[in-house]
Amino acid sequence: MLAALAPEYPRGSTFLAVVDPGVGGKRDAIVVSAGGQTFVGPDNGLLSILWQRARARKCFRIAWRPKRLTASFHGRDLFAPVAATLAARRVPGGWLAAKRAPEVLLDEEDLARVIYVDHYGSCMTGIRAKGLSRDARLFVGSRVLRFARTFEEAPAAFWYENSIGLVEVSVARGNAARVLGLRVGQAIRIAG
Amino acid sequence: MLAALAPEYPRGSTFLAVVDPGVGGKRDAIVVSAGGQTFVGPDNGLLSILWQRARARKCFRIAWRPKRLTASFHGRDLFAPVAATLAARRVPGGWLAAKRAPEVLLDEEDLARVIYVDHYGSCMTGIRAKGLSRDARLFVGSRVLRFARTFEEAPAAFWYENSIGLVEVSVARGNAARVLGLRVGQAIRIAG
Amino acid sequence: MLAALAPEYPRGSTFLAVVDPGVGGKRDAIVVSAGGQTFVGPDNGLLSILWQRARARKCFRIAWRPKRLTASFHGRDLFAPVAATLAARRVPGGWLAAKRAPEVLLDEEDLARVIYVDHYGSCMTGIRAKGLSRDARLFVGSRVLRFARTFEEAPAAFWYENSIGLVEVSVARGNAARVLGLRVGQAIRIAG
Repeated sequence: MLAALAPEYPRGSTFLAVVDPGVGGKRDAIVVSAGGQTFVGPDNGLLSILWQRARARKCFRIAWRPKRLTASFHGRDLFAPVAATLAARRVPGGWLAAKRAPEVLLDEEDLARVIYVDHYGSCMTGIRAKGLSRDARLFVGSRVLRFARTFEEAPAAFWYENSIGLVEVSVARGNAARVLGLRVGQAIRIAG
Repeated sequence: MLAALAPEYPRGSTFLAVVDPGVGGKRDAIVVSAGGQTFVGPDNGLLSILWQRARARKCFRIAWRPKRLTASFHGRDLFAPVAATLAARRVPGGWLAAKRAPEVLLDEEDLARVIYVDHYGSCMTGIRAKGLSRDARLFVGSRVLRFARTFEEAPAAFWYENSIGLVEVSVARGNAARVLGLRVGQAIRIAG
Repeated sequence: MLAALAPEYPRGSTFLAVVDPGVGGKRDAIVVSAGGQTFVGPDNGLLSILWQRARARKCFRIAWRPKRLTASFHGRDLFAPVAATLAARRVPGGWLAAKRAPEVLLDEEDLARVIYVDHYGSCMTGIRAKGLSRDARLFVGSRVLRFARTFEEAPAAFWYENSIGLVEVSVARGNAARVLGLRVGQAIRIAG
C-alpha cells in the first residue's frame, strides 16, 4: 500500500512508516531514498517494494540512537527524530551509515492477495491495475469477478482500478468483504 | 448533519463534502453558496438541505476537469482542487458555470429518522430541536421517550437537544443504540 | 493515561481533557497547573492524579461562562475557549477563580486494572512500571504473566513496560484482550 500511495505525494517528501512486530529486536532501522522521496522505517520488508521498484535509489542504516530508546515504540523514539531531520534537510553527521540494500527483499512485487479492507468493506489487493486488461477475470474463492469502471455500472460484485492504481474488489452499495467472505491475506487469482 | 454542523463554522468557510455512491456516474459536481458559506460536492442530495433552507443562495456546476480524474475518488481529484481555489478566493475563469439549482431536492427538511449513531451509541436524528416543546414525546419502536436537559437528570432513555441543535436519543451511562435496538435509518415519530 | 502521557509533552503545554458523564450537572470546571503544564477539564477525577502527584501545583475554578453553553458539550463551549486563552497566555481577568484543590480525589495513584485496550488488543494497566522488579509476576484472572523486554523475546502472553511507562499486557503477534479475555476495568494483581 505504501508503494502505491507514495507517488501521490510530491517529490522530496519524507515518509515515516512503521509496521514493526520486531521492534526492540535485531532488525536494522533504515532510510531508503527512492523515486525522489525518502522513507524511514524498519528493515523488515516494509520499504522493500519501494526499493525494488526504484531505479535511482540509496539505502542507509540509522546509526544514531536516542538517549531514551524504549523497547516498544521506535516510531516515536528513533524513526521520528530521524525523519524530522531528513525533512528539515539537516541530518547531523554520523546519524546515517552506508548500507548496500535492505536485508529483507520480496519475491513478488504485486501481491495477489487482499492487503486492506476499508471501512465500507471494499478489498484492496496488491496487484497494480496498470497494464491489466479490462477483460481480465478475478478469481476470489469460488467467485469470478469482472471489471467495471464505476460503482454505477457495476454488477453485484466487481473489480476496478482504485484511486491509487491497485485492483480493488467492491460490491455496489454493499460490503464486499462480508458478501464475498474476504479478509486481509485472502489469495486472489487473475486470468485473462 | 452537514446542515446542522455548518452554522458552527465562521461565515466565509468553504466546505468539501462527499458522500458519493454515484461517483464516476452522471451526476454533476456542484458548488452551493448558502448562508455566507460555500459548499463543494456532488449533486446527489448532500448539499440540498443547505440550499433549501438558505435565503441568499447560489448554485454552480463545476465545469473544470483535472488531467487525471479517477472513476472512484472525485473527492481528491475534482472536489478538493475546486474547494482549495474557492477557499483561496482564486477560482480560475471557466471552472464554474451557472446552474439554476441542485437537481436533487428533498421533500423533508427535518428527517424523522436516526441519521447517525456515535461511538457511545447515542442516536442523532435529523429533527431540529428548536421550537420543539420540551413536553414532546418521541416514539421509537415500541418505546416512548421524554425530554431531559442533561444526562445527569435523565431517566434510562431520553431525548435531548444535542450540541448542534438536533434531537438526539441517549441512555445515561449506557448505549442507546443497543438498549433501544436503533440503527441509522430507523424511523422516529414525535407527538406533542 | 493522561498522567502517563503528559510528561511526553514539553513544559508549558496546555491540555484540554474531557471525559464527562456529568456534563451539564453540578461539578465544577477546573484548571490544574502541575509539573509545569496546564490542564483544563471537569472536576470529576480526570485531573486528580496529575494534581496528587505534583509538587508545585495550583487549582482554579473556571468562573467564566460563554454566551451559549449547551448542556451536553462543554468541551467545545466552555473548556476549549479557556484552554485557548491559557495556551495564548491571555486569560481575561475574572475567568479563573481561586480553588483550594479538586474536589474529587483518588485513593490509588496506580490503578491495578486494565485502563485501555488498544487496536491490537494489548491491555494497558494503570500501574507504573518504574521501580517494579522485572521478576514480578502479574496475576490476570487465572493466568500468571512474566516480564519480557520485547515482543521478540516474549512467551505467548507477557507483561512489559510500555512506551509511556505503564505495565502493559500483550501477546506476541496476537490479541491479548481476546486470548486472555480482558476488558477495561479488569483487576490485575502483582506479586514479587
